[in-house]
Amino acid sequence: MPQALPATTIIAQLDRFRRTAPLTHVITNDVVTGFTANVLLALGAAPAMITAPEEAGSFAAIASALSVNVGTLTSAQAATIRIAVQAASRAGTPWVLDPVAAGVLPYRTELCQELLQQHPAAIRGNASEIMALAGQAAAGKGVDSANQSDQAIDAAKALATRSGAIVAVTGEIDYITDGERVVSIKAGDPLMTRVTGTGCALSSVVAAFVAGCPAEERLNAVASACAVMAIAGQRAAARAKGPGSFVPLFLDNLYLLDAITITEALA
Amino acid sequence: MPQALPATTIIAQLDRFRRTAPLTHVITNDVVTGFTANVLLALGAAPAMITAPEEAGSFAAIASALSVNVGTLTSAQAATIRIAVQAASRAGTPWVLDPVAAGVLPYRTELCQELLQQHPAAIRGNASEIMALAGQAAAGKGVDSANQSDQAIDAAKALATRSGAIVAVTGEIDYITDGERVVSIKAGDPLMTRVTGTGCALSSVVAAFVAGCPAEERLNAVASACAVMAIAGQRAAARAKGPGSFVPLFLDNLYLLDAITITEALA
Amino acid sequence: MPQALPATTIIAQLDRFRRTAPLTHVITNDVVTGFTANVLLALGAAPAMITAPEEAGSFAAIASALSVNVGTLTSAQAATIRIAVQAASRAGTPWVLDPVAAGVLPYRTELCQELLQQHPAAIRGNASEIMALAGQAAAGKGVDSANQSDQAIDAAKALATRSGAIVAVTGEIDYITDGERVVSIKAGDPLMTRVTGTGCALSSVVAAFVAGCPAEERLNAVASACAVMAIAGQRAAARAKGPGSFVPLFLDNLYLLDAITITEALA
Repeated sequence: MPQALPATTIIAQLDRFRRTAPLTHVITNDVVTGFTANVLLALGAAPAMITAPEEAGSFAAIASALSVNVGTLTSAQAATIRIAVQAASRAGTPWVLDPVAAGVLPYRTELCQELLQQHPAAIRGNASEIMALAGQAAAGKGVDSANQSDQAIDAAKALATRSGAIVAVTGEIDYITDGERVVSIKAGDPLMTRVTGTGCALSSVVAAFVAGCPAEERLNAVASACAVMAIAGQRAAARAKGPGSFVPLFLDNLYLLDAITITEALA
Repeated sequence: MPQALPATTIIAQLDRFRRTAPLTHVITNDVVTGFTANVLLALGAAPAMITAPEEAGSFAAIASALSVNVGTLTSAQAATIRIAVQAASRAGTPWVLDPVAAGVLPYRTELCQELLQQHPAAIRGNASEIMALAGQAAAGKGVDSANQSDQAIDAAKALATRSGAIVAVTGEIDYITDGERVVSIKAGDPLMTRVTGTGCALSSVVAAFVAGCPAEERLNAVASACAVMAIAGQRAAARAKGPGSFVPLFLDNLYLLDAITITEALA
Repeated sequence: MPQALPATTIIAQLDRFRRTAPLTHVITNDVVTGFTANVLLALGAAPAMITAPEEAGSFAAIASALSVNVGTLTSAQAATIRIAVQAASRAGTPWVLDPVAAGVLPYRTELCQELLQQHPAAIRGNASEIMALAGQAAAGKGVDSANQSDQAIDAAKALATRSGAIVAVTGEIDYITDGERVVSIKAGDPLMTRVTGTGCALSSVVAAFVAGCPAEERLNAVASACAVMAIAGQRAAARAKGPGSFVPLFLDNLYLLDAITITEALA
């Protein structure tokens, strides 16, 4: 039975995150680089999008966390990702995998399966992606999930147990698991699906929250990352007239998020 | 003599488009990927930016439409475009060409001429680009047109006849032709030229409107795509204080566009 | 002793810039391409992001200015940058270097040092980057400076003398120097550091202001570019609720900037 994440946990995790302003190395798809950087900056992280094979390894080793997203994978980017992930693993930099459209396209699905060997700290995807990575039949439509998030809870637990990662399945309700405990978050708004990059940016926020976090606190850190995005999205959607006005409101709400707004949103 | 596009046609086409939420494969330039995805999402399509040669062919075959834009062409991207366009042609996926800066730079002009052999469903460009593709002397300044759209009507008709594509020349007035009929749209606002990507995003909207559309309806589908962008732009510009506030208003207006706002805008 | 830049100089430079609407060739990082184009369009330039090695040389030769930023450098991009910079030097097109994270990552630091031989018209960076390029010990954190801008004044003067470029060190106060005179600008707002790309976009604005400018006016042109960005940022921040609402307000303020708003901001 999933447990709701308490507001006090989210507040404590956000506070820890903001105090450390983690240097977050992001290797993501072309579509969302700018938005992802702006989400991280609004929350208070220090993002760096380092994508050259010549630089990605040494940077992953000095960064506080690494976020890897295969949304517009090319063979050149796959090479960079391998270098960065290996360097991160070796240096003890926690890294997060966003398996965009895994299960739909074999090329990226194979890379994601290969990367699972490198001990990701967390994996964040939609239901279809998590089910595909766990080896279950899933139905994605392009980059969108054709499955509800609760259909993927068992897949998420299996994947967490197998990989050692915290697994987050996001959707109308988010479920986050370490293979045993399952935490749920019911916030957010459907308007978030009408803006590109909210899921991708969340994966980088997960990386930034995992930075410097003790292993036993990781489930709370990942769940709190999901919660701050969902809460800011819900608050933004309440005032937005459409997906255009949503974006500035969302970033402002990330920036302004505090104990009061978090507590209100979950009340 | 160009005919004005009736509001009822635009309303019917937008309705068909929204009911199908077409999976739209977009290969576009670096500058506008995020904005293009947001435009498609705001209108109700399902965009997917798949750019690897390993994936572009199989994805173009399953997508409902493909949009190709040469704005930041590299040799790697040219290879991907060839694969995607051939796969689309073979699978019967309609595809749209945006020949950014054709006529100004020989490398991309040659690729565009080559791609014309692959039966695009539609071509969308500014006057200079369409004149250059049709083999007429044109005068572009970088990515901007140095010609008025009405100067390119004959070139557009000739290009449509030669390629079998619907050709849209956009500018202060848009002209859309199948080689015989010419439809015109007088909407939009000069502020749209002070924001990057409105033309590029339009080409992807054209692709999304052409998805699943019978051949005899294509002229109406392409013209309606131009019309919804121009109408949303005009409505946004009426309330914007500059190009910054224009963008969120534009996306909101695309999202909110309906029979009433379309009818009002053309009254 | 740094001198404050008079409002009348900024007004005259902005006026000259807007009358010529310079065709500005931009080779920049993936994260900020769209934002940079929108900044240039809002101010009144004609940006073109031409990134293929097949096209970059011929385009740099016909452009009014070239802007080069190494923020997401790859070996393919390094090759394009070399071609573009050489073509610009040969054709007399002024070009500007933005040495993002120079000093932190050896690969890009070496390229920047190599490019200094090609006579940049201007160099724009934060304190850590300018100190690193000048050969002084600096402390960057990823892409952010760990030094205050006034710590880099001597490095900027030395770098200007050695390279022949106008050097701009931006931060809470901006310092711009030709190696002898130092001009300072105190405007802007800390919120600008919570939005990705304000520094990168500024470097392209510097290029656009340097376009068509006589050598003896270059210090004023570069300083005015810094000033218009800082003034628009300050005006936007005064009304923004966070980094999300800042962006549209910033672009609107760039678009609306005039003699009155410039004079007010410096009063």
